[in-house]
Amino acid sequence: MLSARFSRVSPTLAAFRTVSKTKQAKSATAGAIAYRKGIRYNSTAALYYPNEPKKPQAVTDSIPGPVSVELNEVLGEVFDNRASYFVTDYDNSIGNYISDKDGNQLLDVYCQISSIPLGYNNPELFKTAQSKEMASALINRPALACFPPAEYANILKEGILAAAPPGTDKVWTALSGSCANETAYKAAFMYLAAKKRGSLDFSDEELTSVMNNEAPGSPETVILSFDKGFHGRLFGSLSTTRSKALHKLDIPAFKWPKAPFPALKYPLNEHSRENAEEEARCLAEFEEIICQYPPHTIAAIIVEPVQSEGGDNHASSVFFQGLRDITIKYDILMIVDEVQTGVGASGKFWAHEHWNLTTPPDMVTFSKKFQAAGFYYSNPNLQPKQAYRQFNTWCGDPSKALIARTIYQEVVKNDLVTKTASVGDYLYKELDSLFKRHPGKAKNLRGEDYGTFIAFDCANPTKRNEFLLRMRGAGINIGGCGDFSVRLRPTLVFEKSHAAVLLSAMETTLQEL
Amino acid sequence: MLSARFSRVSPTLAAFRTVSKTKQAKSATAGAIAYRKGIRYNSTAALYYPNEPKKPQAVTDSIPGPVSVELNEVLGEVFDNRASYFVTDYDNSIGNYISDKDGNQLLDVYCQISSIPLGYNNPELFKTAQSKEMASALINRPALACFPPAEYANILKEGILAAAPPGTDKVWTALSGSCANETAYKAAFMYLAAKKRGSLDFSDEELTSVMNNEAPGSPETVILSFDKGFHGRLFGSLSTTRSKALHKLDIPAFKWPKAPFPALKYPLNEHSRENAEEEARCLAEFEEIICQYPPHTIAAIIVEPVQSEGGDNHASSVFFQGLRDITIKYDILMIVDEVQTGVGASGKFWAHEHWNLTTPPDMVTFSKKFQAAGFYYSNPNLQPKQAYRQFNTWCGDPSKALIARTIYQEVVKNDLVTKTASVGDYLYKELDSLFKRHPGKAKNLRGEDYGTFIAFDCANPTKRNEFLLRMRGAGINIGGCGDFSVRLRPTLVFEKSHAAVLLSAMETTLQEL
Repeated sequence: MLSARFSRVSPTLAAFRTVSKTKQAKSATAGAIAYRKGIRYNSTAALYYPNEPKKPQAVTDSIPGPVSVELNEVLGEVFDNRASYFVTDYDNSIGNYISDKDGNQLLDVYCQISSIPLGYNNPELFKTAQSKEMASALINRPALACFPPAEYANILKEGILAAAPPGTDKVWTALSGSCANETAYKAAFMYLAAKKRGSLDFSDEELTSVMNNEAPGSPETVILSFDKGFHGRLFGSLSTTRSKALHKLDIPAFKWPKAPFPALKYPLNEHSRENAEEEARCLAEFEEIICQYPPHTIAAIIVEPVQSEGGDNHASSVFFQGLRDITIKYDILMIVDEVQTGVGASGKFWAHEHWNLTTPPDMVTFSKKFQAAGFYYSNPNLQPKQAYRQFNTWCGDPSKALIARTIYQEVVKNDLVTKTASVGDYLYKELDSLFKRHPGKAKNLRGEDYGTFIAFDCANPTKRNEFLLRMRGAGINIGGCGDFSVRLRPTLVFEKSHAAVLLSAMETTLQEL
Repeated sequence: MLSARFSRVSPTLAAFRTVSKTKQAKSATAGAIAYRKGIRYNSTAALYYPNEPKKPQAVTDSIPGPVSVELNEVLGEVFDNRASYFVTDYDNSIGNYISDKDGNQLLDVYCQISSIPLGYNNPELFKTAQSKEMASALINRPALACFPPAEYANILKEGILAAAPPGTDKVWTALSGSCANETAYKAAFMYLAAKKRGSLDFSDEELTSVMNNEAPGSPETVILSFDKGFHGRLFGSLSTTRSKALHKLDIPAFKWPKAPFPALKYPLNEHSRENAEEEARCLAEFEEIICQYPPHTIAAIIVEPVQSEGGDNHASSVFFQGLRDITIKYDILMIVDEVQTGVGASGKFWAHEHWNLTTPPDMVTFSKKFQAAGFYYSNPNLQPKQAYRQFNTWCGDPSKALIARTIYQEVVKNDLVTKTASVGDYLYKELDSLFKRHPGKAKNLRGEDYGTFIAFDCANPTKRNEFLLRMRGAGINIGGCGDFSVRLRPTLVFEKSHAAVLLSAMETTLQEL
């Protein structure tokens, strides 16, 4: 990743110095006014953001520019911001374009690490943010499980639950992806223990040993995850995270197992046989690992539809259906981590809908683009028998549930999942053709038929980092993943016109590389 | 604790049926108007809430009333709300009074499990919630460490950091008390490993083993906590939580050690010698436990100024100074968990300021009444040498930091810590006298010179639960902790007039008990 203090002058930068800072500053407001007047456009982005820039605008020789560098130094004295790309001017960010405090305006295909669904300063989200019910949610923040607001059931039903993946109808709300996954793990562990315990009550030995963090009260049960998977950075979630050593070093971890995740070869259609063999190998090894544990030791497996932080690693529906079949065979719960893949970008609202599973996952976790976090489920036994066990002070946050409701309703009203699927198809084909024009510079294009959830590899980490920096210089805010991959994570209102800007910058950058 | 489906008719309830629901509904708005007109009052509560009720108002025979029961059933179909007291009408809650959907209005001394600092529908927080910068923070939620908003440094400096405990000057922001503590643990583990590693780089063995959750990459280092302590419910924090078996059962835990926490006898002035011996015993055992571990195995200890969930257990400054001395002697970090005790209620902004430590704690964690969460520190080495290690997508939430800033500024402007100390003194003395008038019904009064952070014990768990229910019937929303304790957790604008209402209801309830 890139340090705030490390930036380079892009040779393509000068071309983008076209629009003055003053003009940028007015655009968000003008857009909001036009939107309120009901002016209609052909695209959702134009509907929301009539004054969205047509292309990036750069005013400094390098990014971060001098203002960002200075502001970062001030913040750095009190807050660890060494991962900073630049200091952001959110007031002047609009739609798919992010602005920094130097006045640069970049097309954003990274979007706060894949967590901006509808673009910056979305007018519908602004209305929600300024509503009286938002104010009440913010200033009277409830302990949701003890003193629920009367409105919470409807807020969930009209938003988070209206979006529930097929086969799920309940939700437990949380605050982040890590805490969504960890509360799902807790549900799995309590479910497993209750099943083993049957109608018995907690034993005295359990009640005593648990206070010393010892078995049987604190059991040696485990969650199985996959090599290169990422599920968060708190202690339970980090024990299932296998993305990079730097994420995990020096932090004690549970001795939980991992299974291999397929390493597919691209282009897929040229490696069908090898890839099928690779997936079969991984499934066989997965089952072998399960068999090494005594029955009822593995409470759940957790898997991402696309291993995002770990390098945007895909696998086929056959592989995921295989995982599901094996979990059912051995009576193990299946948690699908949709923290990064969920909410539309894959061309389905939930990426695992691509799999057409015959039995839905037991739990599906979410966060990021939904702003709210939590896990979906259906089996009532995933609620522990006793109250106060899946519990904490806040149990979620109604202010985030209000935001999620508007996100869901806007996605549906504007058919953004279908549109994203269509833009993704266009983008994928154009990238495929672009990479063929620049052989050896980008490879392993991934995400066909997967909306804008697209990624590719550079030759090595150095080349990848150079690519990311040059793209930033060319006015594109873009992120990496894995060791040498580039991931695209635009908004759901990223359209063909935006894709054209991205493709043009990539063409130039690949030429220069 | 109390189930929504378990409630009793209070014989004192009828006395409170005085104010119609319509009149209640108007009060919040009328209060806001009066406030905006600049009408001045003698008390901060009256300034904020000129139409705050003078006493509780009950309209149903039992709480939860029929409307709450029905609404809870609807919510319960999709969200685990079995811990619900009643379904809350936040729009009609005002100041120190919480309303339910049946129209009951209760004096609230529980306050969303100790997390409402300035009362319901506070007009200054309302202004913050409706501000343009709040809207931007909500709809453009940043990945704070990568794309910090220009304003974040000032928001921190004017709020969260302006409130920094003596000896700390930096903060890492998080989302909940659990995640505040766990990020502090991570900082401690990385600090310890870096100290042991010295100038060396990560070894190949570390880089390899960590991906398998094995030592040396995933080390066997530990956090030491105290018997009956509570530090959260995610996997790392839950391993340090020792409050109740029900909080921990069936969840795998790290084999981390615990030390005894003093069990003091009350009244303190009658048991000085025994209590000093008890604290000395605990300190000696604490040191013994430390000596059982190889050096550089215990990364940190974590301790609450008052063990809140565990039963509101206090210890003297001598004990805490002793802990600090021993941690320094053995080169172990000291984390003070101020999630529940922080932000003014103890009569100091931070409860550990009561201790007059000669060396400040290494980290202080916060959440709840500050709405924002995180940990304070000073030593720059508590930031890992490499970026992206203390890291996650959001790294906090500016919308909560804005709320925290207003909370801090209002506390200072209105001198609420001093006022809370004074109200607490009054309340403590009156309770002492009340309990003497009703011998055997409440005992072990705790929290002298500790603001409104007051607690006491009932004879046994059954009596405690009966007391809580009768108090609710008498129009007081009040919470328990430990096995048979009652804790008072009012707002910082809980004044003598409110204390008088509480005392009157307690007098009646104790008589009936």
